[in-house]
Amino acid sequence: MSLVIVGTVAFDELITPFGKSGKIVGGSGTYAALSASNFIDDCKIVSIIGEDFPESQLKEFQAKGISTEGIEVVKGGKTFFWKGEYHNDMNTRDTLDTQLNVLADFNPSLPENCKNAEFLMLGNLTPQVQLSVLNQMTKRPKLVILDTMNFWMDIALDELKEVLKKIDVLTINDEEARQLSGEYSLVKAAKKIFEMGPKYLIIKKGEHGALLFDKDEVFFAPALPLEEVFDPTGAGDTFAGGFIGYLARSRDISFDSMKRAVIYGSALASFCVEKFGTERIAEITKAEMHQRVRQFRELTQFEIEL
Amino acid sequence: MSLVIVGTVAFDELITPFGKSGKIVGGSGTYAALSASNFIDDCKIVSIIGEDFPESQLKEFQAKGISTEGIEVVKGGKTFFWKGEYHNDMNTRDTLDTQLNVLADFNPSLPENCKNAEFLMLGNLTPQVQLSVLNQMTKRPKLVILDTMNFWMDIALDELKEVLKKIDVLTINDEEARQLSGEYSLVKAAKKIFEMGPKYLIIKKGEHGALLFDKDEVFFAPALPLEEVFDPTGAGDTFAGGFIGYLARSRDISFDSMKRAVIYGSALASFCVEKFGTERIAEITKAEMHQRVRQFRELTQFEIEL
Repeated sequence: MSLVIVGTVAFDELITPFGKSGKIVGGSGTYAALSASNFIDDCKIVSIIGEDFPESQLKEFQAKGISTEGIEVVKGGKTFFWKGEYHNDMNTRDTLDTQLNVLADFNPSLPENCKNAEFLMLGNLTPQVQLSVLNQMTKRPKLVILDTMNFWMDIALDELKEVLKKIDVLTINDEEARQLSGEYSLVKAAKKIFEMGPKYLIIKKGEHGALLFDKDEVFFAPALPLEEVFDPTGAGDTFAGGFIGYLARSRDISFDSMKRAVIYGSALASFCVEKFGTERIAEITKAEMHQRVRQFRELTQFEIEL
Repeated sequence: MSLVIVGTVAFDELITPFGKSGKIVGGSGTYAALSASNFIDDCKIVSIIGEDFPESQLKEFQAKGISTEGIEVVKGGKTFFWKGEYHNDMNTRDTLDTQLNVLADFNPSLPENCKNAEFLMLGNLTPQVQLSVLNQMTKRPKLVILDTMNFWMDIALDELKEVLKKIDVLTINDEEARQLSGEYSLVKAAKKIFEMGPKYLIIKKGEHGALLFDKDEVFFAPALPLEEVFDPTGAGDTFAGGFIGYLARSRDISFDSMKRAVIYGSALASFCVEKFGTERIAEITKAEMHQRVRQFRELTQFEIEL
């Protein structure tokens, strides 16, 4: 049940209506791996950092069974940094600063023990990097999940379409699904996107939940209604990491299993937003996770005799 | 299982990206009663129309077991008319024309056989009219559901708060819940609104589904993902009519029964948007309705062993 997650390991600085985080650890690979580690003990991160990245954080990954062997440390380099400010509604944000630093030259070289992973998550990076990772795999993984965004659709659509041919599950938000397909209806968008390669599509709608499509079926999971959303940073990556972590553990990639994976991903994402950065997601107990899945059951399950 | 629906019976003229409806029959009372008639045979509409309203439509109501005795016909009067145009995303619309006509002086006088109804739906009308209807009831109904909108919060908040003290279920959209409560979080908004009187709150989120709250529980039903939304007019009233129609038939107002009512309301609303006006909602068979409830089950139900 080997799982490789390719994504950023980075610094964030966040400003929300509730306060300022200062410089903290973030990145798509960080959130996804912490989330997946709730299910499996041999998750491997592939990423790049500078010498300024704290050794203590790498130790924390390792303590959770996350291998950091695939994280390249650039001597004298500086780690990717993002600073953003959320508006009052917590659904929109402004980027205040982006320093690519070592990420600008990220050209991952997979460790040997990553090349035959059964489960592969390609976080939101340039399509070129995503393609390079796929090409280094010595055998086709059982399941490849890919995250991307409107930015790559704007500036690297051809390369993105090359990658889409080679993956199984695409995760994007509703606006990105519309942009990629040219269809407003998400049902029609899913059909167009399946023609591009993916066999499954997850449309993330933030506070409005997530839709999972395959060619014949559709499943919906709401976001848990919360009293307070403290910091939404990383919720999407936490969702995706929980999704693939659950599947990697069960090794069952049927649609019914994916439904359960969507619920676990949504449950983990609902923890993520409760505190700044990775603070909450790094400390979840199994009991808490199962309790939250029970809340999702109460939120969505009904009995109707027909 | 008597049900009284107070709402508009009106003319609409709709422009959507798919075409123009011309002048057709609409109104909150019309949609809600047609929807409720899928469950019960003794639904009564209380409304007001002009002499220009077609007798054939009243006959159509009666053929569905909907009593029109409470619809006042104003001699020489003209029926309420609304003209609107939907934008490409179908989620936003502009009002092009509103002619209140006989609705401007609507001061309903309930027929005797409406005054002891067990179930009462107060459609989106002035709070004064809603209060007047409540005051005419000779006994407190088992359940009163009230629909309102931001317009009344803007111009008649005190009167609206008077009505809220006397009802059981409030249906509003997410923005209206935020406006009424002053809380952005819908969970906090629900708590504030419960202090105003209602014991249940339904937050309608259009294409993003609906939330049902009571003091201790929350239930969520998505909207069915559709290939095409042809005309969203009346979907909210169809939802509310299906909700109270289901409850009036079952006479069970437990939270579990309300969950089922939300699913039936959502299923009926998903038909409503498929054609112009009431065209689709007026022709649903029981088999179609149950088939759609099955689709909701597939869309939302999952099995996780904990």
